[in-house]
Amino acid sequence: MLRIVGFGSGAKDNMTLEASVAIAGADLIVGYTTYVDILKQYFPDKEYYSTNMMQEKERCQYAIDTAKEGKEVVLVCSGDSGIYGMASLVYELAEDNLDIKVISGVTAASSGSACLGAPLSHDFAVISLSDCMTPWELIKKRIKAMADSDMVMCIYNPSSRRRSGYLKEACDIVLKVQSPDTVCGYVRNIGRENETTGILTLKELADFKADMFTTIYIGNSHTKVINGKMVTPRGYKVV
Amino acid sequence: MLRIVGFGSGAKDNMTLEASVAIAGADLIVGYTTYVDILKQYFPDKEYYSTNMMQEKERCQYAIDTAKEGKEVVLVCSGDSGIYGMASLVYELAEDNLDIKVISGVTAASSGSACLGAPLSHDFAVISLSDCMTPWELIKKRIKAMADSDMVMCIYNPSSRRRSGYLKEACDIVLKVQSPDTVCGYVRNIGRENETTGILTLKELADFKADMFTTIYIGNSHTKVINGKMVTPRGYKVV
Repeated sequence: MLRIVGFGSGAKDNMTLEASVAIAGADLIVGYTTYVDILKQYFPDKEYYSTNMMQEKERCQYAIDTAKEGKEVVLVCSGDSGIYGMASLVYELAEDNLDIKVISGVTAASSGSACLGAPLSHDFAVISLSDCMTPWELIKKRIKAMADSDMVMCIYNPSSRRRSGYLKEACDIVLKVQSPDTVCGYVRNIGRENETTGILTLKELADFKADMFTTIYIGNSHTKVINGKMVTPRGYKVV
Repeated sequence: MLRIVGFGSGAKDNMTLEASVAIAGADLIVGYTTYVDILKQYFPDKEYYSTNMMQEKERCQYAIDTAKEGKEVVLVCSGDSGIYGMASLVYELAEDNLDIKVISGVTAASSGSACLGAPLSHDFAVISLSDCMTPWELIKKRIKAMADSDMVMCIYNPSSRRRSGYLKEACDIVLKVQSPDTVCGYVRNIGRENETTGILTLKELADFKADMFTTIYIGNSHTKVINGKMVTPRGYKVV
């Protein structure tokens, strides 16, 4: 059987009980090198197979082939295995005679939100700024649609060396319709060493230097700062 | 201290290790009656305080007041405590001298996605159809914006006795710009007794009878059915 397991932020206690049991019971754990290195701390005596970024297809295929041989294989993803994770690729690659189970996990939108306060307490969108497989024009169209309809946004993959200006471009789109004082936040290295968080305005976010390990939150027009926390009200009347 | 804890779908193994430890170690667990009844199965010897729906403010205030007396209080929410959960309301009600910690959990978007396959593997929006605290016109505007920009949608609270026609209205908005054959899915009672799932077209979804315990997924133009699973490709080239 092939289990596609999201292990959450990387902190052991952000893992679900089901993910923990699946990893502990696997014959083989397959994943991206950085994720495998995290799991080796918690499950040191397991057999692992890891490959680097850009080798996702090869990695999934290896997991599929090994599961077909009758092994209990776990393919690990950080966060939730279904959100920008490997679950869809496995379904696309696998044939119908393989038993596949997706085990959900806490995605960065949720784990990062808990660090900042409660930014996602109303309708929100999760968008990746990575244009490796999605045209940048479509990503920008989506950001404009979110901003126009006052949705909170949670942005994954906000930057990379090649895409260093993308976050600024995204903010500039939002700035055309939302106040420059819109409350925004970032969390870097969620649940890992050197976790850092910050709250800033949309105007400030446009010049913020994010990296690949940062998750960005852009509030809606009601989002506010309460005692240093980023809070999007659900709408209850609070006197 | 007041911990606001998302316990996931309701299946014990969908809970994070941190949530489980927090609940097990609490002096008092506060929550909506239905949620408290779920937790009593797993943690039978704890002290609980529960109130019914529409009593969220009173419930949060009780949790805050009890935590201020020096007790270790856990306020529980299903899914993630920050996504349509109580975290934002607590921040709004609490004063600055209370130690508050949000513990993230697996939200229904993720746990339901795992049941269906991998519907959320690309940019997506989470929208509630409940107009208790959000104008229906704004909700419809958001649905139109998502459909126009080809975002996958995950819909919470798709129906209630009073709002029985809302899901159809939402689908009709999407049908104006997306194919009637767009792949959609639903999961009812995620992780609980009588969990049921189904995959259907957008046209069929418009006439589907959802209830309060159903989570709905509307695919984007690339979402497809593979071996009975709802899969939104991430974009990898699969020959």
